[in-house]
Amino acid sequence: MEREGILVVISGFAGAGKGTVVKGLMERYDNYALSVSMTTRAPRPGEEDGVAYFFVDKEKFEETIAAGGLIEYANYCGNYYGTPRKYVENMLRSGKDVILEIEIQGAMQIRKIYPTALLLFITPPDADTLRMRLKNRGTETDDVIRQRMERAARESEGMEDYDYIVVNDTVAQAVSDAHAVITAAHARPSRNGQLIQTLQEELRLMAVNSKV
Amino acid sequence: MEREGILVVISGFAGAGKGTVVKGLMERYDNYALSVSMTTRAPRPGEEDGVAYFFVDKEKFEETIAAGGLIEYANYCGNYYGTPRKYVENMLRSGKDVILEIEIQGAMQIRKIYPTALLLFITPPDADTLRMRLKNRGTETDDVIRQRMERAARESEGMEDYDYIVVNDTVAQAVSDAHAVITAAHARPSRNGQLIQTLQEELRLMAVNSKV
Repeated sequence: MEREGILVVISGFAGAGKGTVVKGLMERYDNYALSVSMTTRAPRPGEEDGVAYFFVDKEKFEETIAAGGLIEYANYCGNYYGTPRKYVENMLRSGKDVILEIEIQGAMQIRKIYPTALLLFITPPDADTLRMRLKNRGTETDDVIRQRMERAARESEGMEDYDYIVVNDTVAQAVSDAHAVITAAHARPSRNGQLIQTLQEELRLMAVNSKV
Repeated sequence: MEREGILVVISGFAGAGKGTVVKGLMERYDNYALSVSMTTRAPRPGEEDGVAYFFVDKEKFEETIAAGGLIEYANYCGNYYGTPRKYVENMLRSGKDVILEIEIQGAMQIRKIYPTALLLFITPPDADTLRMRLKNRGTETDDVIRQRMERAARESEGMEDYDYIVVNDTVAQAVSDAHAVITAAHARPSRNGQLIQTLQEELRLMAVNSKV
């Protein structure tokens, strides 16, 4: 059966394991396409253009905004991050569920433009787990960890605005749960209007004709 | 993590394969408990009391109604069918997702009493499949099949009132989809109030104390 893709927004605290869950979804199932963001942030060593991000300069980014080419964008720490529209809409039409890994601010923009988007918030089971994950990366200074925890505290105030909370305790379970949530969204009556209408008409006709 | 059970109502046309899907859920997963209905209908040959139904007489059934012992009941073709309250509520408290296989009329009663109940409608992919399934049972007369198709036509008008539509094309897929829908319901923010609140408090405290 042909089905239209769902726009899936995945947010969560830095250190919650969003990236790992998204990677798991892409590897385990074939219904997903991952949206690649555009950013003015400088590439980190080893980062290739077009993989995690499309790297552009500020002028190009602002041109793209002006042309309506982004479905959401935000500015963090002086850098722009945004989601190119064309790829997302093409993939949705082709039936793929398109994953956007974006921050709360962008997520709420998406909801306004795409009211049927599905908003998932990935969280560790508790705050200590988050702190330990950030520390165990071993790549951040205490100051950066402190900033991330403060930001997590602010972001946690917006958790209830998401459609679903996916607890990332073990990655395998979190990936299964995220997939279940997206599978369920496809089973909403509002996404099966054609099936329901056809069935109602067919049954009505059979009843009228007493066909057996 | 301790979680409260969800009351899952499963309805669908006669011949849609509700029973097979419910059996699949019970066999494949360990989070389900199946509610056994009470009825005044006479047992069919081989039907044991307490398996598919508790068989009682009209007087006993009406006493149970009067005592508030049923969470829903209905009368079909002169027989009462109802759902005993005690088993359902005990199982929900113990964390089981309780499955009720009931008709639309009963489903809408359940929704009023338990607004958090999850209502699933099982349907074949199209009307012809339904007709063929009813015919291939080989146990019903053409007249009975005709009555069932007429009833299906009426029941199909209520499909949109369900939370989810599960298409039973292959049983394995329908069981997976039904399980995904129920798994997803556990991930709603409204069912994770305690987790969210604790996390918000912990993160706020860590941020205030600048703990790293």
